[in-house]
Amino acid sequence: MNSIEKLLSAYEQKRHICVGLDTDIELIPKHLLEFDDPVYEFNKEIINATINSAGAYKFNLAFYESNGIKGITSLLKSLEFIDGRAFTIGDGKRGDIGNTSSMYAKSMFDYFNFDSTTVNPLMGFDSVNPFLEYSSKITYVLGLTSNSGAQDFEKLILVGGKKLFQKIIEKLTEWNKNKNLGIVFGATQLNELIENFEQIKNTHLLIPGVGSQGGSLEEIAEFFSKNNFNSFLINASRSIIYKDKSISFAAGALEELNNLNLTLDKN
Amino acid sequence: MNSIEKLLSAYEQKRHICVGLDTDIELIPKHLLEFDDPVYEFNKEIINATINSAGAYKFNLAFYESNGIKGITSLLKSLEFIDGRAFTIGDGKRGDIGNTSSMYAKSMFDYFNFDSTTVNPLMGFDSVNPFLEYSSKITYVLGLTSNSGAQDFEKLILVGGKKLFQKIIEKLTEWNKNKNLGIVFGATQLNELIENFEQIKNTHLLIPGVGSQGGSLEEIAEFFSKNNFNSFLINASRSIIYKDKSISFAAGALEELNNLNLTLDKN
Repeated sequence: MNSIEKLLSAYEQKRHICVGLDTDIELIPKHLLEFDDPVYEFNKEIINATINSAGAYKFNLAFYESNGIKGITSLLKSLEFIDGRAFTIGDGKRGDIGNTSSMYAKSMFDYFNFDSTTVNPLMGFDSVNPFLEYSSKITYVLGLTSNSGAQDFEKLILVGGKKLFQKIIEKLTEWNKNKNLGIVFGATQLNELIENFEQIKNTHLLIPGVGSQGGSLEEIAEFFSKNNFNSFLINASRSIIYKDKSISFAAGALEELNNLNLTLDKN
Repeated sequence: MNSIEKLLSAYEQKRHICVGLDTDIELIPKHLLEFDDPVYEFNKEIINATINSAGAYKFNLAFYESNGIKGITSLLKSLEFIDGRAFTIGDGKRGDIGNTSSMYAKSMFDYFNFDSTTVNPLMGFDSVNPFLEYSSKITYVLGLTSNSGAQDFEKLILVGGKKLFQKIIEKLTEWNKNKNLGIVFGATQLNELIENFEQIKNTHLLIPGVGSQGGSLEEIAEFFSKNNFNSFLINASRSIIYKDKSISFAAGALEELNNLNLTLDKN
């Protein structure tokens, strides 16, 4: 299966929860510190426990880069452990002038071989397009983010009445020639998600911000269900992977993932 | 000298040209391919030739990441070779929700020990502030970029008449509590630079886009000189490092750097 087929297969199996591996060596169970690569051991156990229930795994690159080569090694080993069994997201929010974005796309899609990546669109078309040119990969571009800072710029109102994020979404859907565009839309922005649904419903949605960030999975699930919409992944990171901080953390992660899956199924 | 002192020292010595090490293994002289780490050998020779004339070195992270651990190793060795003798910029244009931006800041400032980094402000205050909290480092945030895509979003007009990049700059200068803010402003945007100079003149400017991208060093130099403004670095990457593609590429780079310095001196 290529990357897009993997994602469609997850949708078909009603696996819409993405496990966010924001693995922080300071937050993982202490007994793992005895291993050579505690971050990898943690990821391996989480993946092993959840692989039959997760829709995808999202790797937040900041958490790996901050440990330098050691962190990149943990990431590579974790990807090797997944070994194509699940859709993967390299969450780096890159974006630069064209020739540099091409290099970032090469890093995400050729070096790491992620199935998808996240991109920041501020710098416009030539910063986004090198990613979209990888037609068998999914590129999730920031639409409206889940954080408090989303109000600083993303929600500013443009002449004509649209908000900046609405203009961004409009342009992104224009640029989606290869039908491989995804949009990041924060779970904490439910009203905006509903209001702008017509514009984004023909893309793949990646919804961060449930769990620790406060977005409501129930309300989003209900809305998607009512609209027969299934092209989405909902990410939860901390609330899944740090649910249980004991030696049985992986079982705790699976339990939380199952709870989230159940909440989706109910709707 | 701490990072900010290094930058001020460069200004005092009238060294305002930043050498952009966008080192691409496919573009460097072929004889270097015999070395174990051709990218490092290239950087080492360029740095060695230019260290007494350069204002700073900017490492475009995409070019290193795309080679994975090998690329990161080349980068670390290049930084070790500089060994604090010049101001360094980690050009990654990162930005994410607060806890993730903290990890990116840790990567740039603690792991790589760059003197400064570039940040994308789209996600607002909590995405930028973790970088600014490193009070002895400089954080260059995107103001108006040099690429064609800058017109897609950065130049959109907001209700009230300001353009998005003007609102970004306004907010950034509000957030500059530690007086360690830098702003990236494209050399290809000279009219906008002149029009918005009052708002940005109390920050450090990083000006990309001269050389291959078409910005005019002469015009910028003339404007800054007329305004007695010296808190700036002007970056040139490809036009310096690939000036000469023969075995004497490092001498060619120095020659081009000297030409650029001369153009600045004339103004």
